Amino acid sequence: MSRDILENISAMLSQGKLAELREELCEMNVVDIAQAMESLPSEELLRVFRILPKDISADVFSYLESDSQTQLVSLITDSELENLLDEMFLDDTVDFLEEVPAGVVRRVLKKADSETRKIINRFLKYPENSAGSIMTIEMVELHDHLTVGQAIESIRATAVDKETVYTCLCIDEKRHLIGTVALHSLLVCKDDELISDVMDTDSQLIFVNTLDDQEQVADMARKYDLLSVPVVDNEGRLVGIITIDDIVDVIEEENTEDFEKMAMLRPSEDNYLKTGVLSLAKNRIIWLLVLMVSATFTGKIIENYESMLAAVAGLTAAIPMLMGTSGNAGNQVSTLIIRGLALGELSPKDYFKILFKELRVALICGVILAAVNMLRMFLFSSGGTYVALVVSGSILCAVTVSKIIGCTLPIVAKLIKLDPALMAGSMITTIMDMITLAIYFALANAFLL
Amino acid sequence: MSRDILENISAMLSQGKLAELREELCEMNVVDIAQAMESLPSEELLRVFRILPKDISADVFSYLESDSQTQLVSLITDSELENLLDEMFLDDTVDFLEEVPAGVVRRVLKKADSETRKIINRFLKYPENSAGSIMTIEMVELHDHLTVGQAIESIRATAVDKETVYTCLCIDEKRHLIGTVALHSLLVCKDDELISDVMDTDSQLIFVNTLDDQEQVADMARKYDLLSVPVVDNEGRLVGIITIDDIVDVIEEENTEDFEKMAMLRPSEDNYLKTGVLSLAKNRIIWLLVLMVSATFTGKIIENYESMLAAVAGLTAAIPMLMGTSGNAGNQVSTLIIRGLALGELSPKDYFKILFKELRVALICGVILAAVNMLRMFLFSSGGTYVALVVSGSILCAVTVSKIIGCTLPIVAKLIKLDPALMAGSMITTIMDMITLAIYFALANAFLL
Repeated sequence: MSRDILENISAMLSQGKLAELREELCEMNVVDIAQAMESLPSEELLRVFRILPKDISADVFSYLESDSQTQLVSLITDSELENLLDEMFLDDTVDFLEEVPAGVVRRVLKKADSETRKIINRFLKYPENSAGSIMTIEMVELHDHLTVGQAIESIRATAVDKETVYTCLCIDEKRHLIGTVALHSLLVCKDDELISDVMDTDSQLIFVNTLDDQEQVADMARKYDLLSVPVVDNEGRLVGIITIDDIVDVIEEENTEDFEKMAMLRPSEDNYLKTGVLSLAKNRIIWLLVLMVSATFTGKIIENYESMLAAVAGLTAAIPMLMGTSGNAGNQVSTLIIRGLALGELSPKDYFKILFKELRVALICGVILAAVNMLRMFLFSSGGTYVALVVSGSILCAVTVSKIIGCTLPIVAKLIKLDPALMAGSMITTIMDMITLAIYFALANAFLL
Repeated sequence: MSRDILENISAMLSQGKLAELREELCEMNVVDIAQAMESLPSEELLRVFRILPKDISADVFSYLESDSQTQLVSLITDSELENLLDEMFLDDTVDFLEEVPAGVVRRVLKKADSETRKIINRFLKYPENSAGSIMTIEMVELHDHLTVGQAIESIRATAVDKETVYTCLCIDEKRHLIGTVALHSLLVCKDDELISDVMDTDSQLIFVNTLDDQEQVADMARKYDLLSVPVVDNEGRLVGIITIDDIVDVIEEENTEDFEKMAMLRPSEDNYLKTGVLSLAKNRIIWLLVLMVSATFTGKIIENYESMLAAVAGLTAAIPMLMGTSGNAGNQVSTLIIRGLALGELSPKDYFKILFKELRVALICGVILAAVNMLRMFLFSSGGTYVALVVSGSILCAVTVSKIIGCTLPIVAKLIKLDPALMAGSMITTIMDMITLAIYFALANAFLL
């Protein structure tokens, strides 16, 4: 479908059917327009951008990838740039400026009026991933002495410039945030009621500080089913609002980061296809090296027992299965615990409950695995019954240890303020490789020699 | 803090300070009230529930866990149950009924009026994870011949019973969905404009079918930054709406499912702490067994080369490091690809672009790893230079193969309609164990014997 639109756009441009194209684009959702424009060559990109009505083109611009944004800004005139900045919401402008080359930022700041420039500069200074860096300032502010009728009137008069009108923020004379009220509630109230009587205050008032982590904002919005979260400065003065569409992006970003950490990748915010081969390699090589070098210990353990391995048939053959099984078992627990911690369903104080549970799960899984392994080795392995018994015994011990480690490491990480997501997958596997071999050789040494 | 509240509630109950408690609770957010009530003994749970004003108690009820809901419903009188059903939004009632024992469902259906009963029964029939199963019917419907002024008036008159008023759904005489309009836009319009002139229609109209997967709803909401998604039946008639708070829950659910699949866990929707040991074991043992038994092949490969391993010092010791490194390398790619597919940033048609990229990344990572390994073995290993060369050569080959497999399997899974998330972590590791050993022994056989 998107290919059809694309060919259509190119065809209409070349045939000069500009009015028709404009009409057709205006019928489309801005996200779809942006997506279709992504693949146009730069002259056509510029022509389509110019065909669109001003307000739509600003919306479309904010949905373009930063490459196309940079391209467009370098092609448009100064007055077009001024118009664009005027129409765009501040958080979109800041998002765009954070991604583009410094030259583009300078040109944009030069063209912005001095008030906007001051605000943009303040926004660009908020730390990455802070609440301040994702908020917007186009929100509804109400003084609490207004009536509901006056409030609705004032909202209607200014709504066109607001990013959201659905949560109204109540402030006092000094701009301190003293309450919030949902537009939904306002509409239900009588016109002559006072805002101060209908707003949520005190313990119902939920807000964040500019420097709070965006993850905290997402957790709050999810817990309280919020459409937006107000942001205050250190003095409790209202400075902005974060809307649910940006919060959804944060949720996906945080999830992606957890996936990447669990696979021992350095987190990256860039789209896979647009990331260069060198950056991809850089994001991966460090952990691959660390894990490889730490496998030196595993190698040392094997070297110590090389003569035993050579003497007893079937002993070496079981090594990959043992390491795999204990790694998989550990990975299962750590994933559950990491996810539970991330969603707030588990906390470090549940540790002993978790541990007791995991010990019982380990016993059940370990016994079943050990039994099936006896059968498996009886059918397929060259080792004798004693070797099979040692391997099964090792499975039971290794699975138990891996369940203990799998639930302990993420919680320890949480306690020492590391990201629990690091304690999964490859990390657990590497640790369990060593422990499993140590258990295996100790048992083999005791019973087979 | 939540512990303080809890002690406070118990103390106030036992001291009979009910009016005071009621006032204090009314100041709290309903989510926090529900959370505090979770840990109360059942008589106190009931007393707190009865103290709350009717509308608040219904809200609180919908945030309770299903255990507490079941408990409460068994304690309250029939008329209290009727009131509760009356105040609750339909999607919350359905959520609650889906989780509680059949006896409770029967009692609730008996107490619901016949209209509600019919609707509830229809909802309970929608397949799990379908759009129909998470929608609600308390929405704003507008006929397109109304004026904006009339529409706003009608919204204000009925808003108290609506779950959301921020997206209004425009229908024709036969209830076909013909457009949507955001309340935000309505407020900006003049009172005498017609709804038919201001609503989004045609290609701007975004909706789903009752039977569509909830994942599709989430993808749409994320892509188009929607606050809600309308739901239509097979004839295009409006039947409900899905709000962003439920969509956020779907997003987290789908992410959890992906995490679980990547760790080879059978997905479970239950809270970890509330899941029994047997269920936990059942969710894990199947894949552990499958992966263990498939490691038989790895064992066979080693058995074939047992004499070579016994003859050449240092050869066995490198096995864990080789398997670990190729597994980690494969896991890194597959995670990136799975995540890219899940977020819609990648699609199967990008396969050759991805493959070419991965081949280059593999070359860079493989060469660095091989070089560092030479150094590592030179310093720590008992094997000679030739063994080190064979091991390094195996690393280079195995990393390359693992990057190819890591990017291929998730895409193949997507093409044959399996969940790509299954092609990560433990699955890739187990496959790579076999391939890595085959490469290693082939090289060793060729160059060392």
